Amino acid sequence: MAKHRKLGRGVAVVGAGLSKFGAYPEGVRTTDLFVEAFKDLESSVDKGFDSRTIDAFYLGNLSSDLFESQVHLAPAVANRIGLVPVPTVRIEDACAASGVAFREAVIAVASGIYDVVLVGGVEKMTNLDTPQVTEVLASALDPDTEVPAGLTFPGIYATMATAHMAKHGTTEEDLMWIGIKNHYHGSLNPKAHFDVSISDFMKKRAESAVKKGLPKPQWHTELDFMKDSKQNPIIAWPLRLFDCSTICDGASCILVVAEEMAKEFTDSPIFVVGTGQASDYFLAERDDLTSIQAAKLAATQAYEMAGIGPKDVKVAEVHDCFTIAELIAMEDLGFYEPGKAAGAIREGETRIDGKLPINTDGGLKSKGHPIGASGTGMVVEIFKQLREEAGDRQIKVKDPDIGLAHNVGAHGSTVVVNIFERR
Amino acid sequence: MAKHRKLGRGVAVVGAGLSKFGAYPEGVRTTDLFVEAFKDLESSVDKGFDSRTIDAFYLGNLSSDLFESQVHLAPAVANRIGLVPVPTVRIEDACAASGVAFREAVIAVASGIYDVVLVGGVEKMTNLDTPQVTEVLASALDPDTEVPAGLTFPGIYATMATAHMAKHGTTEEDLMWIGIKNHYHGSLNPKAHFDVSISDFMKKRAESAVKKGLPKPQWHTELDFMKDSKQNPIIAWPLRLFDCSTICDGASCILVVAEEMAKEFTDSPIFVVGTGQASDYFLAERDDLTSIQAAKLAATQAYEMAGIGPKDVKVAEVHDCFTIAELIAMEDLGFYEPGKAAGAIREGETRIDGKLPINTDGGLKSKGHPIGASGTGMVVEIFKQLREEAGDRQIKVKDPDIGLAHNVGAHGSTVVVNIFERR
Repeated sequence: MAKHRKLGRGVAVVGAGLSKFGAYPEGVRTTDLFVEAFKDLESSVDKGFDSRTIDAFYLGNLSSDLFESQVHLAPAVANRIGLVPVPTVRIEDACAASGVAFREAVIAVASGIYDVVLVGGVEKMTNLDTPQVTEVLASALDPDTEVPAGLTFPGIYATMATAHMAKHGTTEEDLMWIGIKNHYHGSLNPKAHFDVSISDFMKKRAESAVKKGLPKPQWHTELDFMKDSKQNPIIAWPLRLFDCSTICDGASCILVVAEEMAKEFTDSPIFVVGTGQASDYFLAERDDLTSIQAAKLAATQAYEMAGIGPKDVKVAEVHDCFTIAELIAMEDLGFYEPGKAAGAIREGETRIDGKLPINTDGGLKSKGHPIGASGTGMVVEIFKQLREEAGDRQIKVKDPDIGLAHNVGAHGSTVVVNIFERR
Repeated sequence: MAKHRKLGRGVAVVGAGLSKFGAYPEGVRTTDLFVEAFKDLESSVDKGFDSRTIDAFYLGNLSSDLFESQVHLAPAVANRIGLVPVPTVRIEDACAASGVAFREAVIAVASGIYDVVLVGGVEKMTNLDTPQVTEVLASALDPDTEVPAGLTFPGIYATMATAHMAKHGTTEEDLMWIGIKNHYHGSLNPKAHFDVSISDFMKKRAESAVKKGLPKPQWHTELDFMKDSKQNPIIAWPLRLFDCSTICDGASCILVVAEEMAKEFTDSPIFVVGTGQASDYFLAERDDLTSIQAAKLAATQAYEMAGIGPKDVKVAEVHDCFTIAELIAMEDLGFYEPGKAAGAIREGETRIDGKLPINTDGGLKSKGHPIGASGTGMVVEIFKQLREEAGDRQIKVKDPDIGLAHNVGAHGSTVVVNIFERR
């Protein structure tokens, strides 16, 4: 089993870039999206940098194979952004592709073989229609038990949700508060796929109803809207439309460097102090569906390496492919006791003005979930929050010194946790 | 640009496993193939080992996405061979997938984060028919210039072959000698897809002709057979059938450990002393088609890290997806001056009884080319040759202390070179 060791050499993040997340036209390709993220990264490096200093490139991507009929994506991107002849590595671990790629980049810098590494992720999903995308994603499940049972991802996470309800009394309403919070955060993020709060949706839908001469809808609160099955239909009970992350296009990237070189790039680097990763069984073989063992293991490794505990974390990005996944993550990461996360969400503790803000960029729910881009996309947000550069959505916690990113592949058969520190 | 550094910590190979390469029935899955290779690896570890000591798993695979409608393959394999909950990483760099995965495993052990890593590769290609496979493979090419031009891999390598002919006077016959040599080596390898020499083919075809009452064929030599366009038809001139590697299923794996732990597993570990990797431009932007710049760079890095030169290499596995690729590799790796490799092949220098045996397992041509499995498959052979455990095909060179594996993704847009030493 993996040890919880210190890395051989310190590693820092000195730049971060993101494309706008959303649905791009079919002519826009994966490589185009990455170019947009890379330009954003270049402008984020305070002291500037010459891309010829990059030693290697790691790219997370689920399946340009199936979405775009392209394999060998890493050198294709490297060609576009002028990185040839550096080594390029594509990593695929389902929805944790770029979270794992990030960890691999950190390990490589720690090994001493590279000093400056570009790591990112990208996905162009909207070329296919929703049933096709659902099928591609479902191919990350177990071909022996889950796929033949007719399960796709909403069904998988609905199963986990009903288990959580049965064990802890979690309600549909508890999940709705997560969607409301993440859409509120997303409304403050101009790069989010849906940069609109639930209140914004309500206003628009009400206006549209009035225009059509229909009766004015009787929603008094965001929760009313979320409970309206016309506005928020059931996808796989108890999960509704606003419990599900988006099918989305986008790219993200991060510049990691050896700790001792960080000041050449910026006066405010963010340090990678912990990393952990684990795999898990498929659902049928798990003892408990209300928790993901791999997430607990990955978190334990990362905390031990960082020499901290969950209480030290000031801001977290967690993998909310569905609202229930955010709830479970909060418990698996040790932020809350099992069964206690729902109450904290209702109390607003995880909003940007709460004591432990979570998914401040809108999360996969509102910012969007272009699979390969999601892992390093989370790191982009932690980088901004710890540097207090997140603008309207900057967290209110004083001295945000520790951030955590939690990225899940499939239903947890891969989980990677990375921890960051501002010094 | 990548540095040519020593690794932070020494790394050794202590076990190696291979499935039989060939065309398996459709019901046999990628995971089944890997199980076969893993069992072979387990029996190869002299002092035995408990798979629970494995810290992490890296898996090279081109596209189970397109071949088998499965993504997130790494944890699926880990589930099958009992590795949960270790971290699992799938790496895709076209035909260099597992060569790169091997390098990543070495880097990870060198970083100190893991001590014992399983790395392998797998591909199940024969579910699709040849035109479909050709299309999947072609998706590793440049979507802007190469794919629209109608190029598939035989055409790409034929272009490189004609350039080599024009510059160096290379002939079709020169290429045929490579196929003859690799099929001879493959005939000595019971795990090869085509474990038959060209002489064996001749005998079989002659017997079959006589049985059908046809005139006895007039081939006096293997070269006669290779020149017979009925037996060896042109695929993309100057490349014929016997210039092309096989569409194939198979798996391979390697156990790498921290140098200081090697003796716990075996008294004869093989050490990883050099590794290099580079990317390259697509064909239209290259200055020269008779050589692959990325191969030269990767080799230079690996030689410098190992502190040796091409003359020190006693046995090599090079990426012969087409015969011309073997010829170019021999020159790019510095074994022969440009234009001089063909003569050496004709003289038998690269046969198992020659002074620099190449592709002693039959190479991709005869052993087979199950894409994801090829890179670590090469390492399996180097491991055996350096330990003098290759049986009938053991090289005759005295004291085979240095071996090299050269693995190419696509037309060289990725190249990785790893160097091994027996001490």
